[in-house]
Amino acid sequence: MLTDSWILPAVCFVWQIAMVLLFGIFIRYNEEADAHWVEHKQQHNLTDIDNDFYFRYPSFQDVHVMIFVGFGFLMTFLKRYSFGGVGFNFLIAAFGLQWALLMQGWFHSLDQDTGKIYIGIENLINADFCVAGCLIAYGALLGKVSPVQLMVVTLFGITLYAVEEYIILNLLHCRDAGGSMVIHCFGGYYGLAISWVLYRPNLHQSKHNEGSVYHSDVFAMIGTLFLWMFWPSFNSAITNHGDGQHRAVINTYIALAASVVTAVAISSMFHSKGKLDMVHIQNATLAGGVAMGTSAEFMISPYGALIVGFFMGIISTFGYVIPFLAKSLKLQDTCGVHNLHAVPGMLGGFIAAIVAAFASDSVYSHQGLINTFDLTGEYASRTMSTQGGYQAAGTCVAMAFGLIGGAIVGLILKLPIWGDPADDNCFDDEAYWELPEEEEETIAPVLEYNNHMIQKHQDMYAHLGWNISFILL
Amino acid sequence: MLTDSWILPAVCFVWQIAMVLLFGIFIRYNEEADAHWVEHKQQHNLTDIDNDFYFRYPSFQDVHVMIFVGFGFLMTFLKRYSFGGVGFNFLIAAFGLQWALLMQGWFHSLDQDTGKIYIGIENLINADFCVAGCLIAYGALLGKVSPVQLMVVTLFGITLYAVEEYIILNLLHCRDAGGSMVIHCFGGYYGLAISWVLYRPNLHQSKHNEGSVYHSDVFAMIGTLFLWMFWPSFNSAITNHGDGQHRAVINTYIALAASVVTAVAISSMFHSKGKLDMVHIQNATLAGGVAMGTSAEFMISPYGALIVGFFMGIISTFGYVIPFLAKSLKLQDTCGVHNLHAVPGMLGGFIAAIVAAFASDSVYSHQGLINTFDLTGEYASRTMSTQGGYQAAGTCVAMAFGLIGGAIVGLILKLPIWGDPADDNCFDDEAYWELPEEEEETIAPVLEYNNHMIQKHQDMYAHLGWNISFILL
Amino acid sequence: MLTDSWILPAVCFVWQIAMVLLFGIFIRYNEEADAHWVEHKQQHNLTDIDNDFYFRYPSFQDVHVMIFVGFGFLMTFLKRYSFGGVGFNFLIAAFGLQWALLMQGWFHSLDQDTGKIYIGIENLINADFCVAGCLIAYGALLGKVSPVQLMVVTLFGITLYAVEEYIILNLLHCRDAGGSMVIHCFGGYYGLAISWVLYRPNLHQSKHNEGSVYHSDVFAMIGTLFLWMFWPSFNSAITNHGDGQHRAVINTYIALAASVVTAVAISSMFHSKGKLDMVHIQNATLAGGVAMGTSAEFMISPYGALIVGFFMGIISTFGYVIPFLAKSLKLQDTCGVHNLHAVPGMLGGFIAAIVAAFASDSVYSHQGLINTFDLTGEYASRTMSTQGGYQAAGTCVAMAFGLIGGAIVGLILKLPIWGDPADDNCFDDEAYWELPEEEEETIAPVLEYNNHMIQKHQDMYAHLGWNISFILL
Repeated sequence: MLTDSWILPAVCFVWQIAMVLLFGIFIRYNEEADAHWVEHKQQHNLTDIDNDFYFRYPSFQDVHVMIFVGFGFLMTFLKRYSFGGVGFNFLIAAFGLQWALLMQGWFHSLDQDTGKIYIGIENLINADFCVAGCLIAYGALLGKVSPVQLMVVTLFGITLYAVEEYIILNLLHCRDAGGSMVIHCFGGYYGLAISWVLYRPNLHQSKHNEGSVYHSDVFAMIGTLFLWMFWPSFNSAITNHGDGQHRAVINTYIALAASVVTAVAISSMFHSKGKLDMVHIQNATLAGGVAMGTSAEFMISPYGALIVGFFMGIISTFGYVIPFLAKSLKLQDTCGVHNLHAVPGMLGGFIAAIVAAFASDSVYSHQGLINTFDLTGEYASRTMSTQGGYQAAGTCVAMAFGLIGGAIVGLILKLPIWGDPADDNCFDDEAYWELPEEEEETIAPVLEYNNHMIQKHQDMYAHLGWNISFILL
Repeated sequence: MLTDSWILPAVCFVWQIAMVLLFGIFIRYNEEADAHWVEHKQQHNLTDIDNDFYFRYPSFQDVHVMIFVGFGFLMTFLKRYSFGGVGFNFLIAAFGLQWALLMQGWFHSLDQDTGKIYIGIENLINADFCVAGCLIAYGALLGKVSPVQLMVVTLFGITLYAVEEYIILNLLHCRDAGGSMVIHCFGGYYGLAISWVLYRPNLHQSKHNEGSVYHSDVFAMIGTLFLWMFWPSFNSAITNHGDGQHRAVINTYIALAASVVTAVAISSMFHSKGKLDMVHIQNATLAGGVAMGTSAEFMISPYGALIVGFFMGIISTFGYVIPFLAKSLKLQDTCGVHNLHAVPGMLGGFIAAIVAAFASDSVYSHQGLINTFDLTGEYASRTMSTQGGYQAAGTCVAMAFGLIGGAIVGLILKLPIWGDPADDNCFDDEAYWELPEEEEETIAPVLEYNNHMIQKHQDMYAHLGWNISFILL
Repeated sequence: MLTDSWILPAVCFVWQIAMVLLFGIFIRYNEEADAHWVEHKQQHNLTDIDNDFYFRYPSFQDVHVMIFVGFGFLMTFLKRYSFGGVGFNFLIAAFGLQWALLMQGWFHSLDQDTGKIYIGIENLINADFCVAGCLIAYGALLGKVSPVQLMVVTLFGITLYAVEEYIILNLLHCRDAGGSMVIHCFGGYYGLAISWVLYRPNLHQSKHNEGSVYHSDVFAMIGTLFLWMFWPSFNSAITNHGDGQHRAVINTYIALAASVVTAVAISSMFHSKGKLDMVHIQNATLAGGVAMGTSAEFMISPYGALIVGFFMGIISTFGYVIPFLAKSLKLQDTCGVHNLHAVPGMLGGFIAAIVAAFASDSVYSHQGLINTFDLTGEYASRTMSTQGGYQAAGTCVAMAFGLIGGAIVGLILKLPIWGDPADDNCFDDEAYWELPEEEEETIAPVLEYNNHMIQKHQDMYAHLGWNISFILL
């Protein structure tokens, strides 16, 4: 069932030592986190409150909660895979954020003179974002891969992310503050492509484990709610100071609210008795946040955000109601990341392209338009319709990276060295976790009762037998 | 059991579409969230950090957690109604905050020239507050109403809230930053009045479902603790910048600490063996926060806050120990909102009236007194004893709105079109949720064992019968 | 089993009344929380954003979550002691923070002229920190002491903490922003010494309760994750504005990430089949945060933080794998605070001593070095190697206070008046909590089935007996 037991420790140790070495060579504090700040602020006539830390730290902590509790608990819904859901999420996020600091650092924060990466709070947020892409991919693979495979998914996922992000944000000069494109669209298709390559025809052998129980569904709601509540922080964490952060929060807050209402509507509508399905409530309610990832900082207007959330709740719930992929594409998507991340992310990218194309001085103010789309330097003369075109192109790049990258990583994961679980052993923590004994205290009285009845019956037999003997005598 | 299954989807869709239309007509970004901010701050000589966003966003996110995880998980304590507790809370809060943005906007943020409502972070906080009133009312109704009824409760609740808030804060010019009056007193009595009208004489038929199990009580503690921890943010979220927010946090923090200790004391005192009751720990520990809602921003002094918390922990726990309402008023209050919200909210209103009446220049400083009570313009000459009188009047207004409004809404809910559960079907998610199968893995070994024993017994009968035949031959 | 049931209420009431009186005599708002702030800021040419509240409040709320949800839920892992884990944690933290405001106030915030303690947001953070020391001690005692004993542990623990903190921070002039020494090392050894004195040779009689079940382990992960995620806030909450807070966050974030990876590696390595143990994931993953408590604000450099986290994950997991204390010292440490707090805290103290000793103008800048180590006034001429020596001495002071203080408090707790549970009654909520009935809904169908089978068997006996009679006739 498990490959040799040394492979997980070996991967963890070797990769972590590599991180130490690479951090030693490359990573340093930026000027706002370095003790030289006291001199820096005097030179630049700043005060402590101007430190970017105070603009971004509350949002960072919310994002951090989304990564570890949000994604982690959302994946506890399986009845026998809660340890793996929250535990492997913890492992790969913790490894991934280190690798992301390096990969994103090389592309975005490398000082050409010193050859060092200077990091501050914004790098931490971006590392968490980068990790989110891999955790979305994990959602498609949940219960079907080994922790070592997840480490591989993360290593390559972070690498691919950094490259596509560089292409989309730097070369195409797109805006994507909340990552509809670079996080959700990429992460979703990355996970789906891997899952497609790793298709298991006999997965039905684990059918008895693929489902929730009452309490595991309540645990998953912890994940859902923390994702939902903190999504405004996610989409505003790295937007412009001032109106940029303020507006991104409002748009995301509004879009998410509409998603909840329409997800409930569709969920009830498609049930013969009008009942709600927890899978929809746990997932489709979040689709508005995904789709607002790119346009949250734009002047999409409050009703624009509401309309986006309105349709995303519908589309995402439809995806869960009608399992198109599983039937027509032979693609096993445990958490439904297609419906929650891939499609809403892709749509969010295109919506933002349209919103960008129609942006104007009159709505944004002249300086506001320049600030929002960072149309300075070589991009000063870019028209808004051109910007819209680039935004749409960026979405395609994200999707392509996800699909092609995922297919390649999927092939790597097919190598028989990673200790993936057998078909009849999927969705079961037993394979990778030392589990506590069954909930004895619940069964104990019943077992006791059984034993009591057995004793009683045996006494009755004895008595009966004795009676028969007696009669016969 | 359920009314026609189309009613929930229909209500969700129609009301959500109405929200889109109304948002389109009315809601716009305010100047701090609009892309024109870059021009606005130049004109007014501001910097980004002056944006109200940075003063209020951390508190907003904490309040948001209280609304969705705090209230939501506090209501998961019932053994078979955890989905309904957290799920319907999610639905009505998500709808309610949209309606609240409109209702409160018309009363407080409507620009007379343009006819638009300009929203920013403070509007989001106030919308969450407004929703809190309805969620409190849900606490009294938990398990006894349908989701459609809850939508109706929310629609009217938000409307009533906006009106009473306008009367109390604007016409009476009361202060009520943390909403002892407008949120807790109103919301509590609103829910109680509805529950009183909807009295079910045969509710005992659902007695087997009205209670907790071990794990559902632990889930509820998630709600309790997030409410408790973030209450300082709740009471300080919209207080004055600087000392106002700072003081409100300190007062609330202190009052809540005392509530925990005295709630434990009373809980243990009233148990024959000195044991603690989880219901008290989950609820009465929060009473200090409720009661400090109005006076948190006043100079009540740290020991004043401690005294308030001290007595609220006692009074609230008493309420749970002695189920006065259930017996004498035929009022079924599932979560005990009378003890946690209605009474502490009302008392908090009157306490604040007294504290306000005794406020003086010497304690607040002259300008501090003006700032704290916003005694400017037409209110510049109001004396503090007058202010105290108005505060007391405000509390009565909140209570009256709750009781009368709730009674009317209760009558509306009695119409036989809302799909409310039968008496023997209350407190059971089965009515409105597609539930996962029973926790098979727990019972499975027992059932297997049973089958094994049956087989064994049958073999013994066969054997015995054969023996008897043999003997007789 | 329980001592007279009045003792818990009596202790709570009397001590809480004492708090009210002492708060009345001593505690006042500081100038940033007082309504005089409006005058204060004019006099000192400040604006509202300069209020320390805005620099520290987000961190405070995160710390608050760690204290109540983090520690509380980490202690819910026992199958039958989840109420006690989260509930008693709630009680003693709520009492402890009041006493801490007083004790720390007398030592640090007492105005000699007025004899008052003036409190603001930093005092609230420090009170939470102080409480953390006692909650760590609770971890060693979990399930083996009564709530009254825990109140005693807290009363003395807070007192000892305030004294050792005064010695370490004021007399020795050490830096210890995140409390490796004053919180973790002290708290860990304090709890261990108490547990050593209270050794129960017959604790094996409660062996059936000392363990987790599947869902209780998932609950504990809520605690783990909130501690892990918010640890950057913990270590940065009271560091210097600007670079101090910024750097502390980065260092802690990085160290924690490495701890997770190496804890997983060691956990898997020591299992015969390479499986992971939830105990390690729940605890050892946090060791990097503990050990960075003191040096988080220093220029330890990102790779330095990574190395600390790397080794702490290893050392802490080793501690859980090899239960050295239980075997060789007869010390029962329920949560393993030795491995998570005592040792990493002590090592963190010594690591910081080394980092401090090598601190230089070139790395910190001249002013940066003075700011970071607060080398002003009488300490202006202290060399860094001297500072390193004092830091090491401070660690020894913390350990000595923990060990000696804990031994004394342990002896006090041996007095037969505190109602501690019997040996066969440990780790069982039954002793102190009114518990809900067993999860009937799970067992019900099984019991029903049993009854059905009994009836059937009885019918068969009757039938069989009749047949026998018939045959014999």
